[in-house]
Amino acid sequence: MMPGDRPYVQSAHEPPFHARDYVKPDGRSLTLYGLNPIQVTSAVPSPSPEPVDARPVMRWHPLRGEWVMYAAHRLGRTFLPPPEYNPLAPTTDPAHPTELPQGEYDIAVFQNRFPSLTLSAPDPGPGPARMRAGVGACEVIVFSQRPEGRLADLTTAQFGLLLHVWADRTARLEATRQVRSVLCFENRGVEVGVTLHHPHGQLYAYDHVPPVQARQLEQARRVQAETGEPWLSAFVREERHSGERILRDEGGALSVVPPFARYSYETWVLPARPVSRLSELGPAERRAFALVLKDALLRLDALFGVRMPYLLTVHQAPLGGSFPEFPLHVELYPYLRAAGRMKYLAGTEQGAGEFANDKLPEVAAQELREVALEEF
Amino acid sequence: MMPGDRPYVQSAHEPPFHARDYVKPDGRSLTLYGLNPIQVTSAVPSPSPEPVDARPVMRWHPLRGEWVMYAAHRLGRTFLPPPEYNPLAPTTDPAHPTELPQGEYDIAVFQNRFPSLTLSAPDPGPGPARMRAGVGACEVIVFSQRPEGRLADLTTAQFGLLLHVWADRTARLEATRQVRSVLCFENRGVEVGVTLHHPHGQLYAYDHVPPVQARQLEQARRVQAETGEPWLSAFVREERHSGERILRDEGGALSVVPPFARYSYETWVLPARPVSRLSELGPAERRAFALVLKDALLRLDALFGVRMPYLLTVHQAPLGGSFPEFPLHVELYPYLRAAGRMKYLAGTEQGAGEFANDKLPEVAAQELREVALEEF
Repeated sequence: MMPGDRPYVQSAHEPPFHARDYVKPDGRSLTLYGLNPIQVTSAVPSPSPEPVDARPVMRWHPLRGEWVMYAAHRLGRTFLPPPEYNPLAPTTDPAHPTELPQGEYDIAVFQNRFPSLTLSAPDPGPGPARMRAGVGACEVIVFSQRPEGRLADLTTAQFGLLLHVWADRTARLEATRQVRSVLCFENRGVEVGVTLHHPHGQLYAYDHVPPVQARQLEQARRVQAETGEPWLSAFVREERHSGERILRDEGGALSVVPPFARYSYETWVLPARPVSRLSELGPAERRAFALVLKDALLRLDALFGVRMPYLLTVHQAPLGGSFPEFPLHVELYPYLRAAGRMKYLAGTEQGAGEFANDKLPEVAAQELREVALEEF
Repeated sequence: MMPGDRPYVQSAHEPPFHARDYVKPDGRSLTLYGLNPIQVTSAVPSPSPEPVDARPVMRWHPLRGEWVMYAAHRLGRTFLPPPEYNPLAPTTDPAHPTELPQGEYDIAVFQNRFPSLTLSAPDPGPGPARMRAGVGACEVIVFSQRPEGRLADLTTAQFGLLLHVWADRTARLEATRQVRSVLCFENRGVEVGVTLHHPHGQLYAYDHVPPVQARQLEQARRVQAETGEPWLSAFVREERHSGERILRDEGGALSVVPPFARYSYETWVLPARPVSRLSELGPAERRAFALVLKDALLRLDALFGVRMPYLLTVHQAPLGGSFPEFPLHVELYPYLRAAGRMKYLAGTEQGAGEFANDKLPEVAAQELREVALEEF
């Protein structure tokens, strides 16, 4: 077990966040985060004591110009287990250890047992294509100890903690000097292959800048060079001026169905000030961001009265340098385009890289604004 | 109705293909293609006599640097109709007209009644983003008159006809001088939202070069500049040298699980000679390409003993110019990564643009080679 509780004092006006690091029996790392001091009241478990033997590799796709990750061991991973075994819940029966101990904590982060990338990936030697070690990291972020809950059920204070967790994982991975890019995300819904229903997200850390991030940075730089202003500043000003697509505006952060939404109810959460990383948000901005994000998730579930399957991705600047043009934001892709109707990526989306959307963003925003939400 | 039968003579050693053009009651175009002379024995129908009033628009996604298509009328489109009505089968009851007449033909192509792009899209005026008319075309390609069939059930001669149909539609759209790019594809499987089970594909024609095609061209040009040789020539030579990933090689064309496959059983069909469009294939190459494509589709269905859900995309060079570096090929994305296990595009695929694949291409190729196929 590692040293004790590390409280992070954010500001005089905000309670500190707490974190404690552990090592699992199989050698993987675990960090517990909480709004209150962390207390663990059982052994730190692992589903299997065997060390993870991951040898992920990357091969170069010469026509798409992107890396493809191969982790041939991943196919055995947990898939829709029976309700009596939930690897993301605290262990109650030591004969069937899960990933997490019992105790006092809100959010847990551990290394994925079936990683597509690891910091210690060995050199694979020569191969049939341009090939190299799959260097990076894959982490699991458990949002809550409650198996039946949703991310949206977190309190705004817990959402604030989650923003801190995402920022802290990013900072820790940057400190390894092996990582250039971190993508935090949540993929939710059995409709899109989610294997565990306990509320959780993931993190992929890459040793290079992947295509979407590279494109976003390139485009944001182009806009800023052309207009003399950060893309995010102009975007927020124009959205506030029109008001048509804003779902909630809390001053320091706002949610909007962007005028170029690719999914019918696509929602972005942005800070009002152009920053490029979560760690740059001040306490008031973090509170606003947390509140607006929770609000956006609640609206998606309320829209059709079902748990909306969705992908949530957190877009931050590349690491290991200063990229002030990059606009920090969260993208939410809801997969229902109407009640009971999924959006699938077919020919034009996958074969050409262009989306067809049935719904105008202005209409989607109005529908999302009109759903009845309880106060929180 | 338009002028009569237009036989295409391919070579002295190959029977001619036949085609006839029609106009539907609602004004949309229809072309019937056949290995034998076309004969129509009923009226040319349309599900509704009302002219299509499509006003698709495109908006610019500033951070992805791509167009997004909006066709707000598309949501009403046919969805899993009851078995008694199949809009892609020949009309039998004039009180319930379908899209196709009765008669002698193999393949039918008509303009989509719910297009995301049209050649006559009106200027939408100013909008909330960089916005313009959704100029292009969306066509439906019905592979067979048999509702319960599969694309793989076509004879090799009919596959040869289909290659001709894809090339002919491309040439016709290029002749409009409004189209820069044509993507022919088939999206199959209720698992991926296919609304009609009658075997059919689609075509999207764009008035610009979309991102995937632009990237492929840029990458192929880079490789050729670096090596002095077309990408496709080196690829075919290396795959033949290794043999590990080839499924079938018919001299003029071959199928292979590429060493950089993004989907577990991803299969590419390529000509052995570097050409950039289907129209450049000679008769023997077209026969080989047809046979290898049919073989690849049969293997995917035989692999797990179920109809494999998949996306098939045909990659040809941009139009309106000469792009000899662009490698003509077909990409097949099977969506099952194991029996009963779908591959979904989650965080790393959508948020970063990089795929995680559970299976090494060499292993996938071996499994696909080992399935038992009947002679054809």
